[in-house]
Amino acid sequence: MTMKAICKIKAGVGAQYVDCEAPRLKPDEILLKVYRSSICGSDLPIYYWSSWAPQRLKLPLVFGHEFCGEVEEVGSSTRGFARGDFVSVESHIYCGLCYQCQNGQRHVCKNMKIIGVDAPGGFSQYAVVPARCAWKHSDSSLKEVGSLMEPLGNAVYAVLVEEVVSRSVLVLGCGPQGLFAIAVAKASGAKPVVAVEASGYRRKLAEKMGADAVLDPSSPDILKKILKACGSADGVDTVIEMSGSPKAVELALKSVRNGGRVTAFGIPSEKLTIDWAEDVIFKGIRIYGIVGREIFQTWYKTESLLKSKAIDLTPSMTHTFSLKEFDKAFHVLSSPEKKCGKVLLVP
Amino acid sequence: MTMKAICKIKAGVGAQYVDCEAPRLKPDEILLKVYRSSICGSDLPIYYWSSWAPQRLKLPLVFGHEFCGEVEEVGSSTRGFARGDFVSVESHIYCGLCYQCQNGQRHVCKNMKIIGVDAPGGFSQYAVVPARCAWKHSDSSLKEVGSLMEPLGNAVYAVLVEEVVSRSVLVLGCGPQGLFAIAVAKASGAKPVVAVEASGYRRKLAEKMGADAVLDPSSPDILKKILKACGSADGVDTVIEMSGSPKAVELALKSVRNGGRVTAFGIPSEKLTIDWAEDVIFKGIRIYGIVGREIFQTWYKTESLLKSKAIDLTPSMTHTFSLKEFDKAFHVLSSPEKKCGKVLLVP
Amino acid sequence: MTMKAICKIKAGVGAQYVDCEAPRLKPDEILLKVYRSSICGSDLPIYYWSSWAPQRLKLPLVFGHEFCGEVEEVGSSTRGFARGDFVSVESHIYCGLCYQCQNGQRHVCKNMKIIGVDAPGGFSQYAVVPARCAWKHSDSSLKEVGSLMEPLGNAVYAVLVEEVVSRSVLVLGCGPQGLFAIAVAKASGAKPVVAVEASGYRRKLAEKMGADAVLDPSSPDILKKILKACGSADGVDTVIEMSGSPKAVELALKSVRNGGRVTAFGIPSEKLTIDWAEDVIFKGIRIYGIVGREIFQTWYKTESLLKSKAIDLTPSMTHTFSLKEFDKAFHVLSSPEKKCGKVLLVP
Amino acid sequence: MTMKAICKIKAGVGAQYVDCEAPRLKPDEILLKVYRSSICGSDLPIYYWSSWAPQRLKLPLVFGHEFCGEVEEVGSSTRGFARGDFVSVESHIYCGLCYQCQNGQRHVCKNMKIIGVDAPGGFSQYAVVPARCAWKHSDSSLKEVGSLMEPLGNAVYAVLVEEVVSRSVLVLGCGPQGLFAIAVAKASGAKPVVAVEASGYRRKLAEKMGADAVLDPSSPDILKKILKACGSADGVDTVIEMSGSPKAVELALKSVRNGGRVTAFGIPSEKLTIDWAEDVIFKGIRIYGIVGREIFQTWYKTESLLKSKAIDLTPSMTHTFSLKEFDKAFHVLSSPEKKCGKVLLVP
Repeated sequence: MTMKAICKIKAGVGAQYVDCEAPRLKPDEILLKVYRSSICGSDLPIYYWSSWAPQRLKLPLVFGHEFCGEVEEVGSSTRGFARGDFVSVESHIYCGLCYQCQNGQRHVCKNMKIIGVDAPGGFSQYAVVPARCAWKHSDSSLKEVGSLMEPLGNAVYAVLVEEVVSRSVLVLGCGPQGLFAIAVAKASGAKPVVAVEASGYRRKLAEKMGADAVLDPSSPDILKKILKACGSADGVDTVIEMSGSPKAVELALKSVRNGGRVTAFGIPSEKLTIDWAEDVIFKGIRIYGIVGREIFQTWYKTESLLKSKAIDLTPSMTHTFSLKEFDKAFHVLSSPEKKCGKVLLVP
Repeated sequence: MTMKAICKIKAGVGAQYVDCEAPRLKPDEILLKVYRSSICGSDLPIYYWSSWAPQRLKLPLVFGHEFCGEVEEVGSSTRGFARGDFVSVESHIYCGLCYQCQNGQRHVCKNMKIIGVDAPGGFSQYAVVPARCAWKHSDSSLKEVGSLMEPLGNAVYAVLVEEVVSRSVLVLGCGPQGLFAIAVAKASGAKPVVAVEASGYRRKLAEKMGADAVLDPSSPDILKKILKACGSADGVDTVIEMSGSPKAVELALKSVRNGGRVTAFGIPSEKLTIDWAEDVIFKGIRIYGIVGREIFQTWYKTESLLKSKAIDLTPSMTHTFSLKEFDKAFHVLSSPEKKCGKVLLVP
Repeated sequence: MTMKAICKIKAGVGAQYVDCEAPRLKPDEILLKVYRSSICGSDLPIYYWSSWAPQRLKLPLVFGHEFCGEVEEVGSSTRGFARGDFVSVESHIYCGLCYQCQNGQRHVCKNMKIIGVDAPGGFSQYAVVPARCAWKHSDSSLKEVGSLMEPLGNAVYAVLVEEVVSRSVLVLGCGPQGLFAIAVAKASGAKPVVAVEASGYRRKLAEKMGADAVLDPSSPDILKKILKACGSADGVDTVIEMSGSPKAVELALKSVRNGGRVTAFGIPSEKLTIDWAEDVIFKGIRIYGIVGREIFQTWYKTESLLKSKAIDLTPSMTHTFSLKEFDKAFHVLSSPEKKCGKVLLVP
Repeated sequence: MTMKAICKIKAGVGAQYVDCEAPRLKPDEILLKVYRSSICGSDLPIYYWSSWAPQRLKLPLVFGHEFCGEVEEVGSSTRGFARGDFVSVESHIYCGLCYQCQNGQRHVCKNMKIIGVDAPGGFSQYAVVPARCAWKHSDSSLKEVGSLMEPLGNAVYAVLVEEVVSRSVLVLGCGPQGLFAIAVAKASGAKPVVAVEASGYRRKLAEKMGADAVLDPSSPDILKKILKACGSADGVDTVIEMSGSPKAVELALKSVRNGGRVTAFGIPSEKLTIDWAEDVIFKGIRIYGIVGREIFQTWYKTESLLKSKAIDLTPSMTHTFSLKEFDKAFHVLSSPEKKCGKVLLVP
């Protein structure tokens, strides 16, 4: 079976829209007809052939790891799936056998492979994934946001790793993940939710996603403004660092209250300098490094928040392109003005 | 009433053994006849007039914050204490009124004052402390280790902030607090407990306190040796950083397994460089900044571990001096060879 | 100083509106000018001289334990309060010295006394309370609901003893506490919140407080209806039993899913028969007995939920009487039709 | 392939030692050569054809669900196992697809089947089990206790569902599971561990397993004796109810302190009468219904406790019979004098 796909064929910037053979199904896999894909920030190094991508990827590769679709065929040893099921894809291929996998921490599996990075992905008309990475929808109500459950799950895990009800929450960075984090915090009873973001376009999205206050990190006395917006000169209960900017990490540690919590999610491109004594020890804080989502606890929470309409992702879904228009999609996402939220692709 | 005390009278190295007036009792305080004191690492900057001490202290000051004694007199508004009670002293004067104090986090009170730093201490024959900082012993069985319950409490909190039973535990730094942490981990079912310490003298103490393996940080391939001793190439379940050495903090983050836990207790004297992406986020770890002890949850746990003889502090109590010999005591503790464990003073 | 008060002067039904001496202030107490009181279900046995009341009370007694007011005078040994402060009252006089008090469980203090039961209460113009039982408001925004923070705190603790975000929640019994529990669950991200209540009047209130579905326990197949409304044939994630009815407790245990949580709050008047094997062990559930509120963690959460307007108590505040009209108030609350929510008294 | 097995061929007391065909391997299963089996209390209703057994079992059935052995053959769709591996068997065949299975609660899977009850078991020379129910040993050090890891896991989960370090622990009932619970509590830092058991033989075993005090439930003032042995008139921190006796459950609820924890593990044969108000709500306790073990978190803890020799099961392994002698084995276990600990069978 041939299909259309976005394939990274050779080193260098860009990718190609090609006709290629649909991947073959192994016994423990399922074949999906992709319904929607979306672009993650971590797809940019692949497209631009920068950062970690050149060392890690084996080309050619169909990339893309946020996608959903209908089951076309099930492998002979799978259980629980049938043709016609609609599934979203957990991008982390966990081994299921290591200590982490057998102790409730599949998302940090020692033998992790990532779909669309270490294995063929979903910027294509068809995709195969291990059945253990497929999340079956119970009905069709979430089809349109099916590719967003993976990144939304990041935000759900990042925010809810500790309870936030009645707590002040600060979200640093309002890229798609930060925008999602705002919505999750609001839906979970956080009061107030304050966001910080440099892009004016995204500050507006942050408001639409429910932030009680949105601040520009370049404004003078940003720390004071944060504390005022969060309602306590003593500091913020919970800080969700989604940007990876070294300045934002510093702001996270300075703004959190004594005994508060910091989630570290945004990936800095370099090592950071931390005031370990003043900001970590003397404040008695907890720092959670968050990657991926709890498999599948987070998925159930994500589904519930979406189905109950506690979270509405619409404002964050700013752009949709056909698969063929992928170059436009990547340019929108990587433009310095950051005039986008989440960017989707339709095969 | 006059008494003997070690008083920091003027700026500069050292202190003086003086006759002075015993402090006056306020209504919410109790007066103690000090039975034992012990020297904390944080008493060294006071003695040597280095680091944070010159900025913070108002002289003259009787210092020392690890002590115990018998109640001589109780303030008019205190409840629950009577002459003759034996008490150990919680060195943190929490306000009891701030958010942290009213939410189970008195140890990071926003208005904290430290006995022996911001208020008169216990290197003296008598001392007054707020009644709310006194821990009453139920019998006399722990008198001899009464001044050690405060620092032991640090180790109890640092180790037990998350459960350790059946987990591998790595203790970095075997000063008195590290030695205590070894004993706490062992008594709490950790398997195995591995310690790392540069001083040969203290490595022997670490063995006596129950470490299953003790390593020299200067030995080649220390990370590999740690992993081997901890029983898993994947990393250590729980790392207790008690040294404050930048290299040790790095070792902590490198040796902990994906999804594991790091306790940050040892105070570095400078800012640190951290690989936030690789070592915190991608590993999905939890970092706890620990200062002080939970008031009074930790005290109850500490008492129970001592009374049941699950922990025996004897090997760590290497030196005892009379109050008058305090100069000797400080020299032992600050000698570069680190040929001591805990150093006690008898008034 | 004389004042008006509702006093239980002698055994038997009813109470008397009297002039009496305002209570004297001890050093660790504060004197309040009562602004609002409200009637708790546990005031009914006092008024009707039934159940536990005759054995426990020493008459004469001014009763009432839900109230708020302005500080008129502060005892000499109190800290943190000043004339003019507005406070709500924690009705549990905890000793502060027992194991529970010193381990984060003041609400189950071994030496507990209850204001308005074991000590003079707040159905009066003035009241004295230990300063450690006073919760200071940060501004005047919550004055009108100041007496409701105590019972709302029960609901906050009962619901939030485990996280509810994204979980289905079943509230059994929609008396004032059940109504509050509905609001708390909604504000905390529970989806859906289903309530069960026999009184048609209260079922309407339950809807107004935000329940997604409200059921009549006498309807046929109530268990099936609950499961349908909660969205899973497998059972409910979280059950909050607020009624104390033996049938409701049974329904709680039957409706909760395997591995789910039950909060036991409503007080049955007799012993219960439980299928310990089938309903507790084989289902692998957790049961939390809840009494009172965490002091003061729950108060901070309660304040935050009210101040952010995440919770609006208005629909539940159905009746307000002057102190003098207390007989009417008690009759409304104890009428078999249960045509009321919360009943307030204005001194 | 034929094999020897204990087979329940027809209704009525007893079973038969037969030659039968070894079970056929499905693609997701592994075939084991059984090395050791052990008898669980829940095997008695099968042998005696009493209680739940007649309704549930489909005969003929090879029963037995505690066993270990060497992998002889692996199904075509399994991953992670190879001929020669040594495995212990998790007796709960969880579906892996239901809400509970995908949310860290496989042990209460909605579609649970039990090996040796709903599927062929391990009182035989060979057995097949789903690969997802096999726990691979990392070396041969635990072969002799390989069949005991399943029941020991029950005790590990029952005791460690909340931390016990430094807490008083009361174990009610010293059958094999109670004996194991004593060892787990001791290894986990509980102080003291008090056991209650009617059989004198088992009281001696309880001492050998490490109980600090062992009491006879028929002795007068047993509640007072328990509190004295546990070291606090206020009650016990943690009660582990392993007997299923209604009197023991009552004792559990009466002896636990305010704010303490009760584990419900022993299965009563009838419904129980509980003082829900006094013993659950007013005390503010937590009750955990425990069945099975966390899959596979508990298995890792169990392995660690055994490998480190923190737990020595030897005293509890009182009888070993050949498979052929199974009638003797069942008689020892069911004798009214209860003069046994764990009973093993060697194929």
